[in-house]
Amino acid sequence: MNPHGVLETQPSLEHLTSDAEKLFADLEELSRDKIGVSRPSYGEGESKAFDMIENFAKGEGLITSRDAAANLVIELEEISQDQEYILIGSHLDSVPQGGNYDGAAGVIAGLLCLVEYKRTGTSPETPVKVIALRGEESAWFDACYLGSKALLGKLEKSEQALPQRDDGKTLGTHMAHCGADVDRISKGEKLIDTSKIKAFFELHIEQGPVMIARNLPVAAVTGIRGNIRHRKILCIGEDGHSGAVPRWLRRDAVFATADLITRIDDHWTTILQHGGDLVVTTGIMTTNPQNHAMSRIPGLVTFSFEARSQYEHTLAAIEALIHSECATITYDRKVQFEFDKPVKTPPAVLDQSIVERINKACGEEGLPIEAIPSGAGHDASLFANAGVPTGMLFVRNRNGSHNPEEEMDIADFIRGTSVLCRTITEFK
Amino acid sequence: MNPHGVLETQPSLEHLTSDAEKLFADLEELSRDKIGVSRPSYGEGESKAFDMIENFAKGEGLITSRDAAANLVIELEEISQDQEYILIGSHLDSVPQGGNYDGAAGVIAGLLCLVEYKRTGTSPETPVKVIALRGEESAWFDACYLGSKALLGKLEKSEQALPQRDDGKTLGTHMAHCGADVDRISKGEKLIDTSKIKAFFELHIEQGPVMIARNLPVAAVTGIRGNIRHRKILCIGEDGHSGAVPRWLRRDAVFATADLITRIDDHWTTILQHGGDLVVTTGIMTTNPQNHAMSRIPGLVTFSFEARSQYEHTLAAIEALIHSECATITYDRKVQFEFDKPVKTPPAVLDQSIVERINKACGEEGLPIEAIPSGAGHDASLFANAGVPTGMLFVRNRNGSHNPEEEMDIADFIRGTSVLCRTITEFK
Repeated sequence: MNPHGVLETQPSLEHLTSDAEKLFADLEELSRDKIGVSRPSYGEGESKAFDMIENFAKGEGLITSRDAAANLVIELEEISQDQEYILIGSHLDSVPQGGNYDGAAGVIAGLLCLVEYKRTGTSPETPVKVIALRGEESAWFDACYLGSKALLGKLEKSEQALPQRDDGKTLGTHMAHCGADVDRISKGEKLIDTSKIKAFFELHIEQGPVMIARNLPVAAVTGIRGNIRHRKILCIGEDGHSGAVPRWLRRDAVFATADLITRIDDHWTTILQHGGDLVVTTGIMTTNPQNHAMSRIPGLVTFSFEARSQYEHTLAAIEALIHSECATITYDRKVQFEFDKPVKTPPAVLDQSIVERINKACGEEGLPIEAIPSGAGHDASLFANAGVPTGMLFVRNRNGSHNPEEEMDIADFIRGTSVLCRTITEFK
Repeated sequence: MNPHGVLETQPSLEHLTSDAEKLFADLEELSRDKIGVSRPSYGEGESKAFDMIENFAKGEGLITSRDAAANLVIELEEISQDQEYILIGSHLDSVPQGGNYDGAAGVIAGLLCLVEYKRTGTSPETPVKVIALRGEESAWFDACYLGSKALLGKLEKSEQALPQRDDGKTLGTHMAHCGADVDRISKGEKLIDTSKIKAFFELHIEQGPVMIARNLPVAAVTGIRGNIRHRKILCIGEDGHSGAVPRWLRRDAVFATADLITRIDDHWTTILQHGGDLVVTTGIMTTNPQNHAMSRIPGLVTFSFEARSQYEHTLAAIEALIHSECATITYDRKVQFEFDKPVKTPPAVLDQSIVERINKACGEEGLPIEAIPSGAGHDASLFANAGVPTGMLFVRNRNGSHNPEEEMDIADFIRGTSVLCRTITEFK
């Protein structure tokens, strides 16, 4: 089953297994909802998780503090302002009725690295801080990466005015309640000196099925895909009697849209065959529910379009290709396509030398080595785009994320934590 | 503009233009609704139309009667039970808020043929009856060809129990109220001796755009397309994170369905290139409105499928092809297709020698000659399938039918009536 044929040996931090189990169990316990767990961004469940992690860290003799964006910071020993350091971070919030691992795994992995140093009386080559970030999930305020953005001076004023989905209070109110300095955040002040961060690391569960399919317990992440999105494209043809209009006089929006998608699928296949990185999705498609019928030629199809790639040039190519194919189909099939304004998120480039360091550590832990891209966005992308050399590790996980069926083996988590710890310990 | 390059001359019955105009105007007047006209099947508007046509016929000295299914019959002179005759028929009902010409044009054309004989003191080689049929449209009782079916002993008992869409009274009640012999009809008794009908003719407006596009005022109809219909086919894949699942692990129902439609389109093109007759329509298509999202791989598409052809073997071929393509796509794309039970209506074969007679008459009227298929069903198909040699003529019409924008030029109608009259006059 393992295409790599690599023998998996015991992870170097196997002795931390019961600590990890207890941390995840406590976290689940304090945030359990009717279904799954709920830890609202800058809300009660998240804050309780912060307190629990902080108490555990203090109990281990680690130093904790809260930053001006109300994120939790944990250090082995105090790091002075002018010292360079490695930052390990992820988030502790969850989507409503979500899973226990998305985000929390990265915080606990960082924490356990510090615990290992503390308990063994060792220390890494470069000082290490762990940060538990707030508000990564967009589900609560319809905006994401809130804690990272606030820290990096990137939180828009308009975002502070967004209402929470349940209580309707604004993000600003919730942030202030958690102790964030909303005045400085409102000014777009940078609350962290990124020039002192030698590298940012984030461990996260994989949100797709690739590592299960390829039998990879741990993988370095090559990059975080950017995307181009159209929420609503119209294909406008003409309604007609399904029996009485021959093919050459039809302006059939379903056949035209099917043609477009099949052409895009051909390009997608070609791009992959040439070694590119791309996923394409039309998650929404519908004929006109007001008047569609089995015996009416459909004069309208509405559909969404999203392409994601690690490469800006691939996103640009697919954008050009869809318009080029639409032009041909418009001519062939006598339909019109109307595009809404695309929303674009640039890819985040992860540091190639860090990928190599993680791969090396995987090898040392007896794990197969294969780096994969991240399709979803992460706090890491904000640090990468702020110019911090950034690396990510994925841990194998079944059933995707953002749902209670997330299924990460603690053994895999310990493997990931071992790889992370090896990588940062020797990082200069 | 005319691909035929034929000079259009004056139609032989041009002198009946004002009669035609008056008949259509009176019909519109008596059945005008807020939008368009409404002549409910076996209902008041239809009955008023029957009375108006009957009074006009009587005024011209023609003989009128009602048959046991409450259809209106008009004769030049009484035809005895053992005499063979030609039957010209169409219907006088309309869809709710429909157009004035769908159906009525065929009745008025037949009536004007008899008027021409009467006024000129001539008579056709074979006696001619005109029949105004009741209840052709399915819009009122969700069942169609009611008057023809009743006459031919084909009206199901269950159909008599269907409620009218507005007043909720059953078809049986409405039929009895119009004077139909519902007891005989309930027994499935044949109310007409089809062995005496030498030929059945129906003139009808074209419901598609072909004759406008090809500049054909009048055309013989080659056959009435049958169809195979699936109201609901499911393509079942698997939902997934649009960014995190690569192409090779996707089970995308939209890409799979687009692939299927494009493959069917390829077969359709090939069948047409080989001289076949086919139209294919997917009038309804939708991702799952309960959970579809721009960033979710769609795990479900629901769609309808309809194919129509004059040829039974083409319908059988397309049915086999869709299942064959689904099997390949199931393998390639890891989705499942679930088909509901297909509903099939056989094609009606129109009499080839009658097509030739109509073509000849078109030529004599100085009209281009080109026969086309009928995509919609007509009363004529019931007579054809009852073994009566049957012919149809289409008259050019803009904007389809079943709507108030039907647009038939009276000049074209007179051309069609002239062709009909020529064809039946010499028919032996």
